Formats: sequence, C-alpha cells, structure tokens
Amino acid sequence: MPNVYAVIMAGGVGTRFWPRSREKTPKQLLEIVDKGTMIQNTVKRISDLIEPKNILIVTSKVQKSSISKQLPSVPDENIITEPLGRNTAPCIGLAGLFVRRMDPEAVMVVLPSDHIMHDEEEFRRVLRLAIWVAYESGRLITVGIQPTRPETGYGYIQVVDEDNSTNPYFARGVFKVKTFAEKPNLTVAQQFLVSGDFLWNSGMFIWRVDAIMREIKNHLPEMNAELIKIDSAIGSEKYDSIVETTYRTIRGISIDYGVMEKAKEVYVIKGNFGWSDVGSWDEVYRISGKDEDGNSVTGQTLLQNTKNTLVHAGDKFIATIGVQDLIVIATDDAVLVCKQGQSQDVKEVVDYLRRKQKVDFL
Amino acid sequence: MPNVYAVIMAGGVGTRFWPRSREKTPKQLLEIVDKGTMIQNTVKRISDLIEPKNILIVTSKVQKSSISKQLPSVPDENIITEPLGRNTAPCIGLAGLFVRRMDPEAVMVVLPSDHIMHDEEEFRRVLRLAIWVAYESGRLITVGIQPTRPETGYGYIQVVDEDNSTNPYFARGVFKVKTFAEKPNLTVAQQFLVSGDFLWNSGMFIWRVDAIMREIKNHLPEMNAELIKIDSAIGSEKYDSIVETTYRTIRGISIDYGVMEKAKEVYVIKGNFGWSDVGSWDEVYRISGKDEDGNSVTGQTLLQNTKNTLVHAGDKFIATIGVQDLIVIATDDAVLVCKQGQSQDVKEVVDYLRRKQKVDFL
Repeated sequence: MPNVYAVIMAGGVGTRFWPRSREKTPKQLLEIVDKGTMIQNTVKRISDLIEPKNILIVTSKVQKSSISKQLPSVPDENIITEPLGRNTAPCIGLAGLFVRRMDPEAVMVVLPSDHIMHDEEEFRRVLRLAIWVAYESGRLITVGIQPTRPETGYGYIQVVDEDNSTNPYFARGVFKVKTFAEKPNLTVAQQFLVSGDFLWNSGMFIWRVDAIMREIKNHLPEMNAELIKIDSAIGSEKYDSIVETTYRTIRGISIDYGVMEKAKEVYVIKGNFGWSDVGSWDEVYRISGKDEDGNSVTGQTLLQNTKNTLVHAGDKFIATIGVQDLIVIATDDAVLVCKQGQSQDVKEVVDYLRRKQKVDFL
Repeated sequence: MPNVYAVIMAGGVGTRFWPRSREKTPKQLLEIVDKGTMIQNTVKRISDLIEPKNILIVTSKVQKSSISKQLPSVPDENIITEPLGRNTAPCIGLAGLFVRRMDPEAVMVVLPSDHIMHDEEEFRRVLRLAIWVAYESGRLITVGIQPTRPETGYGYIQVVDEDNSTNPYFARGVFKVKTFAEKPNLTVAQQFLVSGDFLWNSGMFIWRVDAIMREIKNHLPEMNAELIKIDSAIGSEKYDSIVETTYRTIRGISIDYGVMEKAKEVYVIKGNFGWSDVGSWDEVYRISGKDEDGNSVTGQTLLQNTKNTLVHAGDKFIATIGVQDLIVIATDDAVLVCKQGQSQDVKEVVDYLRRKQKVDFL
C-alpha cells in the first residue's frame, strides 16, 4: 500500500453563509448542517483511511489558529498558510511540495473542507478505490457526482462511453474523462442531465504526488517555476517571505482549468454517496431534516402558521408568523431574511458591507 | 379659565409590540414611530395646554422609575402607581381622587399614553374646545375619530342627528352621543363605516373631576366605596397597603362600559387630526413613512428586491432578500418575522413565552 496524504483545502472566505460566515469564521469553521464544524467532519470522515499526521490543511493566515483549535489531532506544522487565495492550482501545488518531500510516490487525496456526504461508508469505499487506481495507474483521478437536477452552479465532467478493452478499471466503476465542462447555463444543464454521461465536478482529486507535480510542470510551467522557488526555501528562514513574494505574482487558476482539462487520460469515479457542496442557505434547507410543515429549525423558536422555512436562531429567540418559503438566520449582530431560491444574493449583501466598510458585520 | 389636569394612563403591558415591548418596557416607554418615546410625546403634545406639574401619570410599579427618567419635567409625586391593572375605570377613579383634592372644579383630561396624532395643532384645538365645553356644561366629553376603514379592533360611538336647538355646542362641532358600541364584527363595522354617524372611540376623555366622580358614584357604587377608602388614606402611611387591598377586590372594568354607556348626555367631539392608537406592528407600518418600494426601515439594513416591508433593526444589521409584505423586528435577544396583516398573533408568541416560562424574552 502507498503512503496516503490528505490535503484539505480550507482557504474559502465563505461569503454565501453570511451572517454566520464572517472573514474570521468562514463556512468550513461553522456547524452548518451536522454536529461538528464542516472541517472537523471532513477530517473525521477520512480518519479511518488517513491518520491525522498525514493530513495537511491549506488555509489563510487569519484562519490558522481557529483551525488549529478545531483540529487538535492534526499537528500544527501540517497547517500550511497561503498569504492570499489564488484558487486551487497554487494551493495544491504548494501542498504537493510538502507531500513530495515526505514520499514522492505517495498518493495525495485533495478534499474541499466544506462539503458533506450523507453515506460516509460509501464515500470511503470510493476513496479507497481511487487511492488504489491512482497509485497503480499513475493517472489523475477525480470524483464525479451523478446529477439529480440541472444545476448551473457546478462544473461538469463528461465520461467516455467505453468498456473493459480500453480501460482496465472500467469494471470497478472507474471511467475515463472525455471533457471537463464549465458551469453551464440552464438549457445546457438540462441537456447534461438528460444525456446521462455528465457528472458534477465535486472538486475532490486523488493522484500520486509525482503525477500531479509533473502535470503542473507540463501545463503550468510559470507556476511550476514559482513552486521551485518555494520548495528550495522550505525549512529555511526565508520561507515566509519567499511564499509572500511568490503568491503576489503567481497566477490564480483552478486545478480543473489549469491541469485537469489539459491532462491526458484522467479517470473519474462516480460518487453516489449523497454529496452536497452545501453551497448556499437554499442547499442547507434542501439537505436538512424537516418537520411536517416543511420547517427546519435550530435554536429557540416559535413558528406560527409557518411553512417550508429554515430558521437558525443562534442564541436569540425567533418567532415567525404567517410566512412560508423563507430563510431566517440570526447571529449575535445580524439577521438575514431571504426568500428561498434567492440565497445566492447573500453575496451581494457581503459586497455591500465591504463597499460601505461596515467591517463589524464582515 | 378652569384649572386643567391631565391624567395619562400608562399601565399597559404592551404584548402586541413584542419583541420590542417587554414587561419592563411596554409600548408607551418605546420609540415606536417618532423620535421620543410614546409617553414623552404624549406629554410634549399637551405641554402648551397643561404644565407638567398638572400632569398625573397612572402606571404600574415596575414602570415607575423608567417613566420618572423619561419625564424629568413631571414631578415624581405625580406618578401614581396601581398595584395591578384593573382596566380604565379604577385608574381614572384613583387619579380623580388626587385631582379633586387640588380643585374639585378642575377639568381632567384623560389620555392614553401610547397614541399618536399627526396634526398636533388640531388635536390641541379639539382639547381646548373640549375643556371649555366640559367646564361650562359639566358633561362628560369624549373624542371620536371619523372611521377610515371597517376596523373591528375599536369600540364605536354613534352620534345623534341633531341641530342647535337641542345642543348649544352643535355649531362648534360638539355632538351628543346616542350610543356606545362594543367592538363590532366585520359586517357591522362595514355598516358603521357606511352609515357615517359612527365614530371610533379614541379612549380620550375630558370632564370636570366633580362630574366624573359623581358618575362613578352613580354607576359604580361598589368601586366608589373602595375609592372612598383610598381617598381617606391619601397622605397617610397606610396608603400603600389600602390601595393594595382595594385593588385586590376592586372590579376591573372600562370607563366606557362602566360609566360612559350609562351616563346621560355625553358629548363627543370629532377628532380629525390623524389619530392612531398604534395598536400593532401592522398599524406602525400603515402610519410610517415609506420609500418608493413601500419599505419602512429603521437602523442598519440592506433591502434587496424587497417590497412593502417594515424593518426595525435595533442595533443589528438586517438584510432582506426577495421578500414582501413582511414585518421584521430585531432586538438584542429576539427576532420577529411576521406576514403583514397577522401581527395580532404576536400576542400568541407572548402567551407561548409565558407558558414556557421563558422569562428572559418577556
């Protein structure tokens, strides 16, 4: 068996969960759906597969101490900080430097810190399969989710119609990727859904570290040059300033766009484990347990003549009367009242607060 | 000119303005519509007519110190407390004892502490007229409001179709009362509205103190007997315990039902000064200034794609997205989200909090 390292990407600033998510406490640091914060659950979910000393967290400086507190089992030196967010490719490349130093043939499991899986056993089965195929084949592997609706908020992965003769892993449920597709419009998303060979891009990746670092070198040579500079500074006192300088010039690009779409022979494994990226308050309502009136509540509340409403009371008492299809979220200093289906506009509230420099509420 | 005393009734517990109104800070002690609390504005509104030393406030013990702070111009000894609320008749009788001691021929202007008048100049003109007629005629006078909708929440006053020959004050806009009507159902309220000779009972009364005390004696003899006991204890150290005992047995009854409906030859003056009893959050929205989207907001807010909504943010930041016809009220520890037209159910929230003994939120 290979050495396996997890790289948990926890740099998100989480504007979509305002007023709960704030600059210092983005979504991954919050209890949104289950007990435990999202990053705690991400670590716990893989703890049977990957021990805490093999888990790296990539995050921002401002989140480091909170993450350290939330994850006492993960060594502090495993929490890698980026001076600013530059999308997923630099994040993965930076973590890859550290993994490669420990074992160039190690398998690296890249996971977002703020997703949930309903069937965690099945999730781990998929990861085990992916780790084995990644190690044996040396290919890049991603996890695709069978779409259940014409979602326009995700990228898609088209799989090749194939058989065992061209793909030795086909019988195990491992498919070759035909194309990666950007977020579609609704018409295209509906076609994707009907076609049956498009999967949601879950943002989870499994590969040998030597494979991904080689692909970064091939497809993102400028970034690779910057990563070499960082690599040579690891362990020295220049490290922080080199990372700082590097990140100021490095190109912000996603691993999907920068590498996966260009790499040859990428595999995708279908994940059928009740995945959600928990991307909005609407999605939280969708995946939450509800009472007979369709309401989902946490905290002290009284819902009178209220239907299909999500209420998070925090430490307040919230009363609703005669409303339906709402999202009501209270925190210590702010309240959101949003019609269901419109929670994507929460980020406009955050934009407004930034513009007006209402820093207390950010 | 007679001596004029105002008696401001401020005993209301104000459950209808939860979460702003609480046991210790009912509606009259809050800034609900205008700058200044409702009781401060009630005093200010009559300050050209009645000086603060002639203003008596009747309230509960729990509110006394707040009222004293809010009304520094009113002498502390003018704040009379009732051990418990027994509706308006005992409240008026108790205050009448104090006014009578100062001047038995004084005119007593009885005002709720939590109403508003848009046209305060016209309000004072009506009061001046009422004071003059009350003093000269010795009759009980009430102020009736021309209905603008078939309101089922108010009592009504029917005026007599008459002329100068039977009513010397008719030409001045003073009418004889034919009947007092209880709160009607909607059908009856619509008939009242169409008939044109029904007015809303505003709960404002003007009379000579000797007149009202005589009418109480005539129509509420048991209450009068209790008031005599209190009267004899005024100024003595037994006063508090006598009032306590008296109020435990005294009958809770409104001055309308107990006296006005039974008294002969009551006058009503039409008040056309933009009156509101500010009886609910719905009423607050109705009388508030609104922006072009029909929204009325106080505090720090961002209303996105929001219409016809009342928002009170307190010291919170409130964002609304994609909603309409709502009432959103935030306080330090509680939030109300209510469909417009249903704010009468706020009292059920308070009932719930009482039942569950959630005293922090009461």
